Amino acid sequence: MIDEVKCSKHVCDTFTAVNELAKRRGFFWSSFEIYGGSGGFVTYGPLGTRLKQNVEARLRELFVKQVGIFEMESSVIAPGKVFEASGHVDHFKEPMVECQVCHTRFRADHLLEEKGVSSKEAEKMSLDEVAAAIGFYGIVCPDCKGVFGVPQRYLTMFETTIGPYSGAVGYGRPEAAQNIFVEFNRLFNCAREKLPFGVIQIGHALRNEISPRQGLIRLREFTISDLEFFFDPEDPSCRFISEVADEVLPILLCDTRLRDCETVSYFTVREALDKKIILCEWQAFFMAMAKCFLVELGVPVERQRFLEKLSWEKAHYSAQSFDQEVLVDRWGWVEVSGHAYRTDYDLSCHMRASGVDLRVYKEYAVPVEREGLVVRPVMAKFGPAFKGDAGRVASELSELSVEKVAADLDRDGYVLVGDYKVFKDQVEISHQRVVERGTRFIPHVVEPSFGCDRLFYVALEYAYNVKDDRVILSFPRYIAPIQVGIYPLMGKDGLDVKALELQRVLTKAGFMTDYDEAGSIGRRYARADEAGVALGITVDYDTLRDDTITIRDRDSWRQVRASIKDLSELLRKYFDGKIDFELLGEIIQNK
Amino acid sequence: MIDEVKCSKHVCDTFTAVNELAKRRGFFWSSFEIYGGSGGFVTYGPLGTRLKQNVEARLRELFVKQVGIFEMESSVIAPGKVFEASGHVDHFKEPMVECQVCHTRFRADHLLEEKGVSSKEAEKMSLDEVAAAIGFYGIVCPDCKGVFGVPQRYLTMFETTIGPYSGAVGYGRPEAAQNIFVEFNRLFNCAREKLPFGVIQIGHALRNEISPRQGLIRLREFTISDLEFFFDPEDPSCRFISEVADEVLPILLCDTRLRDCETVSYFTVREALDKKIILCEWQAFFMAMAKCFLVELGVPVERQRFLEKLSWEKAHYSAQSFDQEVLVDRWGWVEVSGHAYRTDYDLSCHMRASGVDLRVYKEYAVPVEREGLVVRPVMAKFGPAFKGDAGRVASELSELSVEKVAADLDRDGYVLVGDYKVFKDQVEISHQRVVERGTRFIPHVVEPSFGCDRLFYVALEYAYNVKDDRVILSFPRYIAPIQVGIYPLMGKDGLDVKALELQRVLTKAGFMTDYDEAGSIGRRYARADEAGVALGITVDYDTLRDDTITIRDRDSWRQVRASIKDLSELLRKYFDGKIDFELLGEIIQNK
Repeated sequence: MIDEVKCSKHVCDTFTAVNELAKRRGFFWSSFEIYGGSGGFVTYGPLGTRLKQNVEARLRELFVKQVGIFEMESSVIAPGKVFEASGHVDHFKEPMVECQVCHTRFRADHLLEEKGVSSKEAEKMSLDEVAAAIGFYGIVCPDCKGVFGVPQRYLTMFETTIGPYSGAVGYGRPEAAQNIFVEFNRLFNCAREKLPFGVIQIGHALRNEISPRQGLIRLREFTISDLEFFFDPEDPSCRFISEVADEVLPILLCDTRLRDCETVSYFTVREALDKKIILCEWQAFFMAMAKCFLVELGVPVERQRFLEKLSWEKAHYSAQSFDQEVLVDRWGWVEVSGHAYRTDYDLSCHMRASGVDLRVYKEYAVPVEREGLVVRPVMAKFGPAFKGDAGRVASELSELSVEKVAADLDRDGYVLVGDYKVFKDQVEISHQRVVERGTRFIPHVVEPSFGCDRLFYVALEYAYNVKDDRVILSFPRYIAPIQVGIYPLMGKDGLDVKALELQRVLTKAGFMTDYDEAGSIGRRYARADEAGVALGITVDYDTLRDDTITIRDRDSWRQVRASIKDLSELLRKYFDGKIDFELLGEIIQNK
Repeated sequence: MIDEVKCSKHVCDTFTAVNELAKRRGFFWSSFEIYGGSGGFVTYGPLGTRLKQNVEARLRELFVKQVGIFEMESSVIAPGKVFEASGHVDHFKEPMVECQVCHTRFRADHLLEEKGVSSKEAEKMSLDEVAAAIGFYGIVCPDCKGVFGVPQRYLTMFETTIGPYSGAVGYGRPEAAQNIFVEFNRLFNCAREKLPFGVIQIGHALRNEISPRQGLIRLREFTISDLEFFFDPEDPSCRFISEVADEVLPILLCDTRLRDCETVSYFTVREALDKKIILCEWQAFFMAMAKCFLVELGVPVERQRFLEKLSWEKAHYSAQSFDQEVLVDRWGWVEVSGHAYRTDYDLSCHMRASGVDLRVYKEYAVPVEREGLVVRPVMAKFGPAFKGDAGRVASELSELSVEKVAADLDRDGYVLVGDYKVFKDQVEISHQRVVERGTRFIPHVVEPSFGCDRLFYVALEYAYNVKDDRVILSFPRYIAPIQVGIYPLMGKDGLDVKALELQRVLTKAGFMTDYDEAGSIGRRYARADEAGVALGITVDYDTLRDDTITIRDRDSWRQVRASIKDLSELLRKYFDGKIDFELLGEIIQNK
């Protein structure tokens, strides 16, 4: 099946409308306004915080509760070593140019994109190519028309110092994945040393953008959900694959993209795996989950796609990467999650940098007997020679091929292990017959990574509706920030007391409620619709007589009359998606 | 009533036992071990993350759901201005000394405390007094016996740069309160401009400790829950006070402390307010909630106390402060929450620094008519004269007494407003008859602030029990990280399939479950007890016949036989605290 969705840029600006509503009703706004603002930081107000928590709770429900993924929580600040090992210190950089006159700094690739260079091309340019392109297009400072200096790479991590010594560099984590990799051994222990297993971390992360923009889309501080799933590459099968085999994934393939075409192809998970469109079962499983998750947040499949990353777009170590994108007003296709098959890259990096063994042991079904050379470090000599690095050198030595070590020692009298020379007398080489009962290997990793602020924004924009000139936020019922609004017809005659009593009962039963007695019922409904309150309960004079109330549906504006008795139970079923609105009570015909 | 609880320091080291168990079972451990560790950072593993989330969920349940406090979420990094205004840049410092030989740095007050100086005394010392005391006690470097240099104050905030310009200083927030104060106007708008209202923020915070220690007690990155409650000081009554009037609070009063005595006095909330032991109703209310919350986490009242802070211990602007402390092994009394009556200090600071009006308007019951001088800025002249500061100068001018302004202008020809001179021709002074319909004022603030990592630790230590040489974590049922363990008697004969099916049902019903088929049932129970799994369900051969299972209670080891039908419903009631264990099924007599 083939389909294409075009982005209707700037036709009707829902983006502006959503942002204005968000600010007015306290979903979110730019932080620090009283100090003139600080780009790239947002504050979630009462309604926004609840919505964001509901989105994150859904992630936990899907991955932690239902798939059995572990969750962990670690720190935003990490010592420099972590991000040196991961490659961030060298590579987490953006091209920047500075105006030679007013000294304002800009992201060079963004300036080029404004001249029509595709982000695809801008991303793969070297600094020399960036400089040439800026010259070619005659780009000058947008602020003062000044000439730009030589482009530089700018490290987009927040840097700080840990403790009272200036040498102890620390960084704000730009993602939540490295915490998981560096704690692998302990987490593997929590999994009782069995593969496969996964770990998710949902938390704040920091990217010191040169010029943040696009509201919630590009922030300097944001919430990320990184899930690292570890498995044995020789046993890559996913035990849940049959459950998602028929899910359809909309994929924009590399081949299609290289023809400069945006046509999406649709494959079932089974087809995608059979045709090797997706290489790894676990990756396909998480992509299917991600698709369903976005549908649950209110984004239909036709407005989603998985963009297969081109070779120069994905990290060199990544076997395959897809970006899950959602079509939004103003910005077109926006990435909401990334799906990367990271192989053994991250654990290898940290193993090399730390000298700690991050491999896992696998027993062979049948022990293997073999004869050959064995190299053993003479620890009595290693200690004095390599001091604190002795363990690391020994571990790295054990990773080299025995044949190579023997050959080097024969030829040079030493073998190079990292920066160290290991000499003949520091090792023992023998010819032995050994029975290998198993092997040690580095697990492979598939990573689904979600941007929670973008998920939040997408849920908000897709909930945004206008009906009879009134704004309604039609959130799916389980993410509505307020589930039940409670309104006494009048704020007197005991109606208020009765309504507050009902609120207390429903709150105790676990519902997120709001009480409102200000203004006419119509105005209160309108206010509630705009905040996305799922159901409205009105307490009137009949309530005092017979303990019945009116329940109003936010989206259809239909009403039912129901009894207060058993209300909690019915509402529970409604919010769990087990019954429809009509089953909450007796339908009231609209006048 | 009078009572005293002595701290049994170092008698039996539960601290070590809890930390070892925590590491072994994945509750928490020191982060970045593979890189040699980095003091003051911890990682919460799968069990710990759940426990921590359950503790935080309980805070939300109490404050957000039941009291109607707003929740917000903002950034950990904030521009320098925020913490300059709040006073942190000047005052958030600790005394530090550096060894002149090995250049190791130490917290001076900690060194003094090791010589027997009380923390009370060490805290109020000036740097000269610190230097003198170090000389007096002959304190030298604990590492190399070197002599210390002159003590300095060390800023314990993490510093960074926001964006690509080195001048844009940013800090990691040392608490979550300032985000709330700087966003006051928007939050007040969310409260529909009505007092009183409160806002809570639960999130990571950073303190760049000189030498972190004591495990979870003193971290460089931690989770704080700051609640700022705003009210009209002329209407300080708390509408919930009658609900907590009879709650007993254990208070260690200033007077008692000054007599160097640790005797706790017990007052009901009503008594404490009547006797003016606690000055503000809202503060008393939150203290009562904090007490009950800790009881819910497993800490009996006899092991809690509220320490009234001495004048030099509390911030100068605080009208009254209490620390809620819990008695723990090894460390004695440890603060878990702080309760400060912060008056209008914070909003005033930010109003002064930003020039933005953070006052709220209150209408008089009866308009006030008065005759007198009125000063108005001539904005046509203010603009050119004060440029971007014009608004701030005008706002600050309006806060000065009219009489003083008139007198200054008469005498000097100008009046000093902040750093600016405002001249006669820049204002209009007239004698008018004005009707004042209301007034603008800065709300007062009461702040209950919880350290979530300490709450977590306290819950863990108080759950720690040993029975028949086996460790049991007896968590209160609603914070148990795993609610239900599911165990097939054997991992075969369909028992495993049946058990997994049951797990699925319970997971869908919202329970946090764990499946375990490894080893004997006894070993599985022991493993579960150590992880604090509240209930264990065993699926056996009878289950296949009649759909009944055995449920085992973690603490009493008692067992009941129950039907799978209606199990979810019964478990829901059990975990909501509505029914006891015995009501889950038919008691099985222990063999």
